Amino acid sequence: MQQIIDLVEQNQYTKARAELLKMNPVDIAHLLEKPPLEKSLILFRILPKDIGADVFSYMSSEQQKYIVGNITDKEIRSILDKLYFDDTIDFLEEMPANFVKKVLKNADENTRQLLNQFLNYPENSAGSLMTIEFVDLKKEMTVREALKHIKETGFDKETFDTCYVINDQRQLEGIVTIRRIILSDEDVLIKDIMETNITYVHTLDDQEDVAAKFIKYDLMTMPVVDNEKRLVGIITVDDILDIIEEEATEDFQIMAGIAPVEDAYLKTDVLTLAKHRIGWLLILMISATFTANIVKRFEDILQSSVLLAAFIPMLMDTGGNAGSQSSTLVIRGIALGEIESHDIFKIIIKELLVGIIVGTVLAGVNFLRLYFIEKVTLTITATVCISLFFTVLMAKVVGGILPLVAKRFNVDPAIMASPLITTIVDAAALTIYFILASNLLHIS
Amino acid sequence: MQQIIDLVEQNQYTKARAELLKMNPVDIAHLLEKPPLEKSLILFRILPKDIGADVFSYMSSEQQKYIVGNITDKEIRSILDKLYFDDTIDFLEEMPANFVKKVLKNADENTRQLLNQFLNYPENSAGSLMTIEFVDLKKEMTVREALKHIKETGFDKETFDTCYVINDQRQLEGIVTIRRIILSDEDVLIKDIMETNITYVHTLDDQEDVAAKFIKYDLMTMPVVDNEKRLVGIITVDDILDIIEEEATEDFQIMAGIAPVEDAYLKTDVLTLAKHRIGWLLILMISATFTANIVKRFEDILQSSVLLAAFIPMLMDTGGNAGSQSSTLVIRGIALGEIESHDIFKIIIKELLVGIIVGTVLAGVNFLRLYFIEKVTLTITATVCISLFFTVLMAKVVGGILPLVAKRFNVDPAIMASPLITTIVDAAALTIYFILASNLLHIS
Repeated sequence: MQQIIDLVEQNQYTKARAELLKMNPVDIAHLLEKPPLEKSLILFRILPKDIGADVFSYMSSEQQKYIVGNITDKEIRSILDKLYFDDTIDFLEEMPANFVKKVLKNADENTRQLLNQFLNYPENSAGSLMTIEFVDLKKEMTVREALKHIKETGFDKETFDTCYVINDQRQLEGIVTIRRIILSDEDVLIKDIMETNITYVHTLDDQEDVAAKFIKYDLMTMPVVDNEKRLVGIITVDDILDIIEEEATEDFQIMAGIAPVEDAYLKTDVLTLAKHRIGWLLILMISATFTANIVKRFEDILQSSVLLAAFIPMLMDTGGNAGSQSSTLVIRGIALGEIESHDIFKIIIKELLVGIIVGTVLAGVNFLRLYFIEKVTLTITATVCISLFFTVLMAKVVGGILPLVAKRFNVDPAIMASPLITTIVDAAALTIYFILASNLLHIS
Repeated sequence: MQQIIDLVEQNQYTKARAELLKMNPVDIAHLLEKPPLEKSLILFRILPKDIGADVFSYMSSEQQKYIVGNITDKEIRSILDKLYFDDTIDFLEEMPANFVKKVLKNADENTRQLLNQFLNYPENSAGSLMTIEFVDLKKEMTVREALKHIKETGFDKETFDTCYVINDQRQLEGIVTIRRIILSDEDVLIKDIMETNITYVHTLDDQEDVAAKFIKYDLMTMPVVDNEKRLVGIITVDDILDIIEEEATEDFQIMAGIAPVEDAYLKTDVLTLAKHRIGWLLILMISATFTANIVKRFEDILQSSVLLAAFIPMLMDTGGNAGSQSSTLVIRGIALGEIESHDIFKIIIKELLVGIIVGTVLAGVNFLRLYFIEKVTLTITATVCISLFFTVLMAKVVGGILPLVAKRFNVDPAIMASPLITTIVDAAALTIYFILASNLLHIS
């Protein structure tokens, strides 16, 4: 890599080009992100046009912006001509409006209409993911005719292994794989070898649902239809891989109380990072101050036995951890489609039982430690251990239920993860602790 | 669905079969999970053999176990004959040893050797994921010969769209897509149209690395080679989709302090769930009791101002949340390959700056609330707010660093998530709080 950069610095462009062409377009794109932008531009311009377009589609949007800002209109058109349609859309979505206008003006009528249509699909919809590079056949064609049609039109089709059979209204009637076609007799009709049991999605379906279907049915491509069941595009599995990772990343962030950040951590500036974190921290901090009022209400009991304060952190942390274990499992189960709203009673019972087992073990260990090793009085030991048991039990059940409640109210279940559960569990744990302490210390 | 079950109960098997055949094999498999097992068995046996094998590959392993336990050896052999090789391996891996022996005994010499070899690849390795259904070509073949070879041997090949070019030692020399072949002139040699810049993996590579390559290079299939670069199998993208989801689920669990559970939540029994949660809860509870000792050390200062105890929960929660925000972003960044060990200084600086911004805002809001609304004394307000600022700052930096430290010591960075960070941050926060309180209250 350094070698290529050195060659460019010595103006040995032919050699640099030969080295570049040994690499995968993905790796070339990564390489071009490294050196100063002017050098990248030179390297990019010496690439053959079709490889250049491929490399371009793997670049970051900042890099793409820099490149299109510094090459001629003719060069831009030549890249766009060679880009797959879905990559063109991805690229245009990230560009400033005046640039998109310029591209649309330079495109022919047909392409312009298509680009406009695709750019208008909502973000995260099936429509925004699809590409138009597919082969369409008619069911009355013979295998011979189909093969001829494929050879005439097929070279740039991204997912050549599946062909789509449509009628005169462009409605989807079947799919047939290229394998099936070339293994069939030349006079067989397409309608006799096509598959009619097709899994498809609508343009406005959410990308998460699309990804779930890909996983469930082990698909490589999926047709996208409009309201009249007309085939408008297809989605390929490589875009689904990215979506699954994105959706998981989003859930990780929401579950940690972060407003989702789209860019990679290292590429996000400090102010954005701070802005995306401060919201939940503020909300949670203010809710946590209500726990201060609980403690204040029991100031007398605390005054009479300051030692009680020493066990507050342990009680709170254990409750928070126990609760977030349950909420995490349920949130993930919902995300994977394994848990539905009607499973709520199964979950309550499961969490109650798990809570009893886990709570008993934790309280037991704690009792041994406090009473026998730390030599704490029996009253305080009992207060701590009984509170611990009920805190864990309550945390488990609350952690198991809240994500499902959120789902029922159409709120993202991921919000009900550790931070929020911890705050709720804390307030409840402290209340249990001090009421128990008042009663037990009063008796003794 | 109920309709099909009703038909079976009325012994109308032909009608039930006709209804079943309208469905996707994945949906049939799900349907067969529902009714009592004997009914499922009848439904399964009335399916045509090739569809039956397909349905079988989508069943849960309990269901598979039940089916093979209740059908004849001949039926088992006929299913195994029709199963894809990777599905056979997946199935055998879940079966008891005596059953696997029986299958191996019934297989022919060649298959037996292959099955043995594949069953011996470590779990989570590339070898355990691969299938042997691929088309291999020689580079000296013409397109005409290649097409003939494909037609003769190709029908059951799972990923027909890519063919693999190997030499006489079975070493991988190139790949060529079926699209390229049928669009080329019949006399062209395979070596002139094959791609030699190939991304491949070794049999013992970890599945997470394999998935990362699929995502990076937008692949549909990837060849797997042994130490002598001989082609031994291929991995298809549908298996990768499952792995990405599994790996994310595992990270979610580890980050919530749960020992990873493989089965779905609802299918896991209470004892297993409890066992997988108790370990970390115990460790964290015992570490949290050390914070009790910190509080005890400052019992005097607490006695003189019990109000101080009221702000402990808020301080701890905010610190914990601030820390887990940072650790989550860094852990996810490492998992996606966006953050490397050498980025540690960039992360420290970023988190310091974010911590200063976030800490200032939180301390400021808290100051306004405590001093002006709650009318707390200036000394205590100052103690709380200054502690809050430093706690947030420290939590951010610790949360950002620890996952990278874990990585350097080859520990899964996901372990350094909220529960552990919270425990560490708590102890530090309380120390800051009480030292500050001692000094400020002493002066005033």
